[in-house]
This record gives sequence, structure tokens and C-alpha cells, in this order.
Amino acid sequence: MKTYNVAIMGATGAVGQQMKDQLEKRKFPVKDIVFLSSSRSAGKEIRFNGKTFTVQEAKPESFEGIDIALFSAGGSVSEKFAPEAVKRGAIVIDNTSAFRMDKEVPLVVPEVNKSDLSLHKGIIANPNCSTIQMVCALQPLKEQFGMTKIVVSTYQAVSGAGIDAINELKAQSADFDNAKTADANMLPVKSAARHYPIAFNAIPQIDQFTDNGYTFEEMKMINETKKIMHDDSLAVAATCVRLPVVTGHSESVYVELKGAATVEQIKQAMVDAPGVELMDDPSNQVYPMPLMAAGLDEVFVGRIRQDLDNPNGFHLWVVSDNLVKGAALNSVQIAEALIDENII
Amino acid sequence: MKTYNVAIMGATGAVGQQMKDQLEKRKFPVKDIVFLSSSRSAGKEIRFNGKTFTVQEAKPESFEGIDIALFSAGGSVSEKFAPEAVKRGAIVIDNTSAFRMDKEVPLVVPEVNKSDLSLHKGIIANPNCSTIQMVCALQPLKEQFGMTKIVVSTYQAVSGAGIDAINELKAQSADFDNAKTADANMLPVKSAARHYPIAFNAIPQIDQFTDNGYTFEEMKMINETKKIMHDDSLAVAATCVRLPVVTGHSESVYVELKGAATVEQIKQAMVDAPGVELMDDPSNQVYPMPLMAAGLDEVFVGRIRQDLDNPNGFHLWVVSDNLVKGAALNSVQIAEALIDENII
Repeated sequence: MKTYNVAIMGATGAVGQQMKDQLEKRKFPVKDIVFLSSSRSAGKEIRFNGKTFTVQEAKPESFEGIDIALFSAGGSVSEKFAPEAVKRGAIVIDNTSAFRMDKEVPLVVPEVNKSDLSLHKGIIANPNCSTIQMVCALQPLKEQFGMTKIVVSTYQAVSGAGIDAINELKAQSADFDNAKTADANMLPVKSAARHYPIAFNAIPQIDQFTDNGYTFEEMKMINETKKIMHDDSLAVAATCVRLPVVTGHSESVYVELKGAATVEQIKQAMVDAPGVELMDDPSNQVYPMPLMAAGLDEVFVGRIRQDLDNPNGFHLWVVSDNLVKGAALNSVQIAEALIDENII
Repeated sequence: MKTYNVAIMGATGAVGQQMKDQLEKRKFPVKDIVFLSSSRSAGKEIRFNGKTFTVQEAKPESFEGIDIALFSAGGSVSEKFAPEAVKRGAIVIDNTSAFRMDKEVPLVVPEVNKSDLSLHKGIIANPNCSTIQMVCALQPLKEQFGMTKIVVSTYQAVSGAGIDAINELKAQSADFDNAKTADANMLPVKSAARHYPIAFNAIPQIDQFTDNGYTFEEMKMINETKKIMHDDSLAVAATCVRLPVVTGHSESVYVELKGAATVEQIKQAMVDAPGVELMDDPSNQVYPMPLMAAGLDEVFVGRIRQDLDNPNGFHLWVVSDNLVKGAALNSVQIAEALIDENII
């Protein structure tokens, strides 16, 4: 069996740690592995497949001999180092937004558009976490019934903002009676001018605002969904909201289909969809929730209802672990698909 | 100045306490007041306008001589006692769902449909909390531009489920590392078969499920909105979700208007709308959040954006205190409107 030299760039971050876990758990055919980070985290130790590795400061030459480089260290790091890795013969699977909308870069969720991988020119982009889980649930419906419109409102976990944001939620949650005046430094955006407590709150801002009043997170969901689904005519609207949830994004999704469908057909499509698990039994209070989805691989779908006014309209509740399928698992699945498709 | 004998039924509950606060704060012309409850809470003491009152167990004859009875003690209590109060000459303002969809009962948000009050036959219903704040924001848009469709996803606080639910959220929040296995007895519905932790979670069930897969909470939003707005042809869809927020409901609302509008026109309509406050300045990260809205009277609206595909589509983020405008304040405003309109 062929094995591969792998690099994880951003190895000490929340997603980087999950990438390592997924490589181990899925028995990815690793020949050798190198864990890379900024100088600040270099020197830390990481256990992988029973051995201890020391995290190294990333340099262009770190990518010599690397076959597959998994990046999750921020957009500017990807912009700087991904071309260096490609220059040295690696295929980069990038979990940042740096290259996602680049026409030369495939943006891939293997269950949805694996065939785009063959078009790569060295870099393959991993979509935004909230986009991935939504397209996993919706692509089967689009294929079977056609789709004209998506309106999504998200319920997103703080782990998407990193380990420091989780720690801030923990600290704020411990002081229930002073939530309003809690110390806040991380959210909605660490570098933003104003910060708000997330414990016992809902913040309708994820990432910075663009000029049109939408946030970058909302525009990512809109643009990435159209790119992954190969349909610029698909209407997509998003409102993205950060919640006091540690891990696991939830989405309230309204879709309008081209053709007629029944709730039973939608449910069957979810049962048949790869990577998706139907959790939908209202009479027994069965529906997905982020606290239960955390740590799991699947995209869970429940609360499937036909719209009461538009027979082609359907409502779904979609939950998945934003660090797993929303990031690390999807990146490793891309690497596996490269092998399956004989691209690497 | 004419003064009135007032009763509060359910005086020791979360909403009952707020009703008392609102009567004091707004200097409602109270002649005498009686605080009523079940036998379990009778005997407790309540301070009102500088005097101490003892809570009495409600009986039919408790309503003798009462002009206005504010009810918030559950639907079955309203079904039993509201007709007794009406029989004795009181006007009942009922905060439960018992009579809301009764054709003989006006369902009123004073800013929206005050004129319906004159049709009352003794009982006036206070709408569901999540409905009230939404129609306050949307009625001005419907009047100015016409409206064909509403799709709302809610982010609802636990205080809507009562004081015990708040205490459960507090207890669960204190044990951050064991959230998944936290003791849970109150939510989503106390009487339901299964309970889930709300801390660090999102539960897509509020109230029980109806046969069509929607919850009663969702059907309340759908049916009450059409009734209050006097428009059965208006398409309304709702997904209602409980969050680890103490007080303050948030709503991600998508509306389709009949006529063309601009974001500036929508903003101006919010500035002009009674009871509504525009909080919408993305460049300064200004938007409403439940933690900041708790305890305030207004319905706050922000994140106003034109849909990128449908020029008549708009997205709004609507936040208000579910115990205040969503319940107690609206009930007291109904009582004030009865006086203003010379109905009582």
C-alpha cells in the first residue's frame, strides 16, 4: 500500500488537533508526518500513532518531500506558505478562506463534488464549516428535485473562533449573575473594536462585516454554496449567529425545490445521503442538537417539515460538529479522495 | 382621574411579577389590587406601590368587583377562571394560549391592532411572546409596502419556560465540563417524556409537537401573526429553538414585500414604528443582542439587509425581552388602551 508524507500546518490549533485525530482514527496511510506552527507554538509535543513529535516552526523548506499538506493556521499563513508547499510538490488542502473563491482552486466536499478534485493546480480548498454541513444535506435534494432558493439562519458554536473563545465562554458561564458585564475579549472577532459576552447571549455577527451589510461568514455561505453546487442561479441567503455552545453548529434551513416532493421523500433522501444521518421522530422528541453531535462525524438532519403555504418549500434542522465534518474530517476526506481518484 | 380594581392571576410567576412591575412603573391608575395564585403559592407577600399584599388562592368570587384581570397562570387556569371573572364584570387580559385563536376573542398588540379591542366580549388575548415582537417590527413594513411571506427562525430564552427553567440553566452552566450529562428536568417541556440539557445546547423544540410536525410554538407564531395582521393569505413559516439565554428572544426574519423598498426605507420605518428601536450600525458593530435587551421595553431591530437575489426580500434581526414586551408590558398596554379607547 502506498503511503504519504503529510504536514499539518497549524498543528496546535483546535482544528489542527482534530486533523491529527482524524488521520489516526481513519488510519490514513501516513509514511511520515510533520507538525508545523508559528514560532510561538513551536517546541510543543504532539503524540501521533504512538510516537511523540515536536512541533516545528513553519518555513518554506518545511514542505520539502511533503505529499499532502493540511493547512489550518489562518488565511495569511495559507497565502504565504501554501504556494511554497505547492512549489515543492505538495498538494495543499487548505481549511482557511484564502483560496476558496479562487477560480483555479477546487472547493470540495467529497460527498457533493469530488469530481472537482481533478481540476486542482496544487491547492484544494476546504469550505467554511457552516457551508459544508448544509450542502451535505441539500445536495441530494437538489439532485433529486431541483432547487431554486435557500434561506438559512445559523446557530454557531464558539469553537469556530478557537480555543481561547471556548475558554472565554467557560469563564463567563461560571458567573451567571453578572453575565451582562462579563469580561469579553474574543467575540465576535478578536481583532474587532468591540467585544461582547457570549455566555447567555446570541451575537448576530460572525467574522467582520462586508460593505453590503452581510458578514464575511454570511457571504462565505452564499458564495461557497453556489460554487460547490455549481449553480450561480441558486438563490442563497444566510444570517449567521454565534451562540453559547462549545462545539456543534446548527442551522435552520428553508429550501424551495423545483419539483414536487413529500416529507417522506426528503427523509428517504437523507437516509440515502452519504455522511448524513436522519434524526427525525418528533413523537419521541428525536431531533439533532449540538451538545449531542459534538465529537461525531455525521451531519444530522431532523425537524423536516413541508412549508404550510408553498408545497415545494421545506424546512430542515441541520446539526454537525464544526471542527469535525466542518473542518478536519472534510480535509482528511479530501486527502482520501485524492488517493481513491488516483490524483496523488 | 378614574381608577380601576385590578387582579393579577399567577402573581408569583415570572410574568406575573413583571406585570406587577409594569403597573408600578407605568403608574397605571390602580384603585385596589389583588394578587391571586394557586393554593401552593398563596400566602406569599408581594410589595406594590409601597404596600405589602398577601397572595390569595384564586376562587371564582376573587373577581367580585374587579375591573381588569391580568391572567398568566397557564391555559387550564385561564379556561377555568377567565369566564368566572367575565361573569362578574371584569375584562380579562389573558397571557396564555387558551383563547388566542377563539374567533370571539381579540388578539391584540396595541401598536398593531388596537382597534380590535372594541370587539371584545370580556376576554382579550395577549399573543405569544415570539409573535408580539415580530409583528411590532413587521406591521409597519406590511402597511407601507405590502407583505407576502415571512420565514422566521427563533432564538428563544429559557425564561419563557418559567423560573424553574432559569434555575436549571444556572445549575447546568456551573458545570461546564459535564454539560452533556447534566441533570435535566425542565426543557424542552416539563411534562414531556424526555428532557435535555439547555446549557451549551440548542433545543429545536418549544412546546409539544402537533400532528403536522410543527410545534405548538411554531403554529402559534404562524396562526397568531395572520390573525393580528388580519391577513389569512400571508405566508408565515416558523422554526422555534430554545437557547441557553436567560431572557430575551431573538429572531432571524426573512420577509418578502409586495412593493419595492430600500434598506434605508426599512430603517426609517423602524425609526417611525411605535415601540420599536432601530439598532443597526454594522460599521460600529451595533445590533441588538438578548443580553442587552433584557429588562428593556423596546423591540430592537438590526442587521437589516436586502436579499441578494430577491429585491423585494429583506432580512431583519429582531430582539426583545420576552417577559416584558413579549408578555407583561403588552398586557398592561392592552389595559391602558382599553382606557384610552373608552372601552372600560
